[in-house]
Amino acid sequence: MLRRLHVFGPATRAALATELGLNRSTIKAVVDGLVEDGVVEESVPRQRSGAGRPSLLVMPRSQAAAVLAVDIRTDRVAIAVVGIGGEMLGRNSWKLHDRTRSPDEVITHVIESTRILLEELKLEMVAAGVSVPGVVRRHDGLVHEAPNLHWTDVPLGQRLSGALGFPVHVGNDAELGALAEHVRGVARGASDAVYVSADIGVGGGVISSGAAMRGTAGYVGEVGHMVINPHGRPCYCGSSGCWETEVGEQAIARALGMSEQSPRGAIVAELRTADAVERLASVTEWLVLGLVNVVNVLGPELVVLGDLFTALPNDVVTHIGEEVRRRSLVSRAAGGTRVVASTFGADVMLIGAAELAFEPVLGLA
Amino acid sequence: MLRRLHVFGPATRAALATELGLNRSTIKAVVDGLVEDGVVEESVPRQRSGAGRPSLLVMPRSQAAAVLAVDIRTDRVAIAVVGIGGEMLGRNSWKLHDRTRSPDEVITHVIESTRILLEELKLEMVAAGVSVPGVVRRHDGLVHEAPNLHWTDVPLGQRLSGALGFPVHVGNDAELGALAEHVRGVARGASDAVYVSADIGVGGGVISSGAAMRGTAGYVGEVGHMVINPHGRPCYCGSSGCWETEVGEQAIARALGMSEQSPRGAIVAELRTADAVERLASVTEWLVLGLVNVVNVLGPELVVLGDLFTALPNDVVTHIGEEVRRRSLVSRAAGGTRVVASTFGADVMLIGAAELAFEPVLGLA
Repeated sequence: MLRRLHVFGPATRAALATELGLNRSTIKAVVDGLVEDGVVEESVPRQRSGAGRPSLLVMPRSQAAAVLAVDIRTDRVAIAVVGIGGEMLGRNSWKLHDRTRSPDEVITHVIESTRILLEELKLEMVAAGVSVPGVVRRHDGLVHEAPNLHWTDVPLGQRLSGALGFPVHVGNDAELGALAEHVRGVARGASDAVYVSADIGVGGGVISSGAAMRGTAGYVGEVGHMVINPHGRPCYCGSSGCWETEVGEQAIARALGMSEQSPRGAIVAELRTADAVERLASVTEWLVLGLVNVVNVLGPELVVLGDLFTALPNDVVTHIGEEVRRRSLVSRAAGGTRVVASTFGADVMLIGAAELAFEPVLGLA
Repeated sequence: MLRRLHVFGPATRAALATELGLNRSTIKAVVDGLVEDGVVEESVPRQRSGAGRPSLLVMPRSQAAAVLAVDIRTDRVAIAVVGIGGEMLGRNSWKLHDRTRSPDEVITHVIESTRILLEELKLEMVAAGVSVPGVVRRHDGLVHEAPNLHWTDVPLGQRLSGALGFPVHVGNDAELGALAEHVRGVARGASDAVYVSADIGVGGGVISSGAAMRGTAGYVGEVGHMVINPHGRPCYCGSSGCWETEVGEQAIARALGMSEQSPRGAIVAELRTADAVERLASVTEWLVLGLVNVVNVLGPELVVLGDLFTALPNDVVTHIGEEVRRRSLVSRAAGGTRVVASTFGADVMLIGAAELAFEPVLGLA
């Protein structure tokens, strides 16, 4: 029931009874227990439906169980305190420079900012979720490699949980993007979905049979390192022609005739110009090829494009969807894979990080 | 317990008690029940260990629960009756020609051969598993497309179960190869493994977190249709440069300087010649590239090469493993993905088909 309220928001006792297939007395017992624990509260709904005594509206008390969400990116860190139900109760962020990008600096700053936020909010936290743009071992939060942060083998989970005093779960950024989309976004209810996003790197998160797919030792896949152009550019990973070298932020900047080091804002502005669709032709073709592969290997019903890809012109996204459906054998068999842009803004990793922290709290993992 | 006996074979009551964490009286009750039902039988073990009364050896009675396994390939069909415990109690096979490859012909022949086999064996069957080299919708056994059989939208599961009178489960051949390897082969006990095999097409089956991975509507992925060479040959699927156009049976024949239509036996013989390793250089490189992609996307601990790939020279398989570990970011993070050849011969699909049929019988799916 808590999961229902957390994900879908307030509901009347009557609606909960119907949805969960429980009788009135069971619902009463469960809700009364949660009210007593201070986890939910009840109120008389404003809009009455039908005659008779109104069914009380049950809603999660966001202060009752709060988690810390941390989104570490190449150029900035954002932290947020998120209450049960998904409300952001407070947040803070700061930019990263070469000087402040070291693991020590980031960890110290996260801990200090969290303490300040908690004092302001007068809250205790039950867990944290952290998003990192890199290869992460899920079970202990070791960051094996985060190339654009220049981090290698950082025991991030252990160091943060040691200092903060509550469990800290660390995930790959695209994995958490997939989680956010699956719990609260356009992939809600999808059994099989893939989230693919572009920052400097290109990452992917996979929902398979309703759950996050992880490989051996908890490492999620790195779709950005599919070799897609055997004659392509060398990639930092040691291969050449990886997908991210053809469709990542730098490739998009190149296609637009800009410097690879152009700031994100300038690239997004250029993507809105009239002839962007034509200039993106090669990137679009590489995006189609890579997504055909993703769909043929994983068989999702839905592909969600995130981060910088959400700034692609609508015509490009539409064209990509059509081409993937036309060229992918598995899409044709399964009746047509949808390709859509994420509707979350820059907060998608924070939302995913919060859900990662809530999973064990709500008994989901 | 039945699953334990089915997969790992006979065991003493004492060993079962230890393995399953049950006390002697529970084991006695369960075993006595299964003996009464005729599913297992007990005998005094030949080799005694220690003093005291010997613990009885419990073994599955292979006749107690038998399934039908069917392996449909481009050039032949094999059927087998497999008892609980995995023993093949009887089998039959026949070649397919252009004239006998139609769905009607194959279905009629499977039904007739099964009836003959059952009369000989005086057995009843509880379920069937069928392997098909094509895109299969798992939940109802619709063969959406089996290009090398020239089948499209054949309701194979429904037609066979209607005629045979017991449940028929249909799977993609590589999916069932993965299942066979996971239950009884080199991937036994692996949590995350990929089985990749070459026939005319190239297929893949994925074990993720200990279970078969399936995409939307039950369609498994088609790794053979990753676009790996954007400037490559057109593929029947509508794309160009699919992995199977570079590493499938015809590509291997071309690399060896043979006709694409060479019979399998001739190709295997040629693979055993002294200079095969050099002649295979391009196929080997495409195999490495595709496997780097498979490992980077799916993160398995183990890749099993099946079917025609088992005939590759050992040096080639060793080289492929080294290159995949060197070039795959995810393999490096996870401590090194192993690449091994299947140890099953031509029966791997039959074994997998039998396990597909046993899964629901043993309460596994």
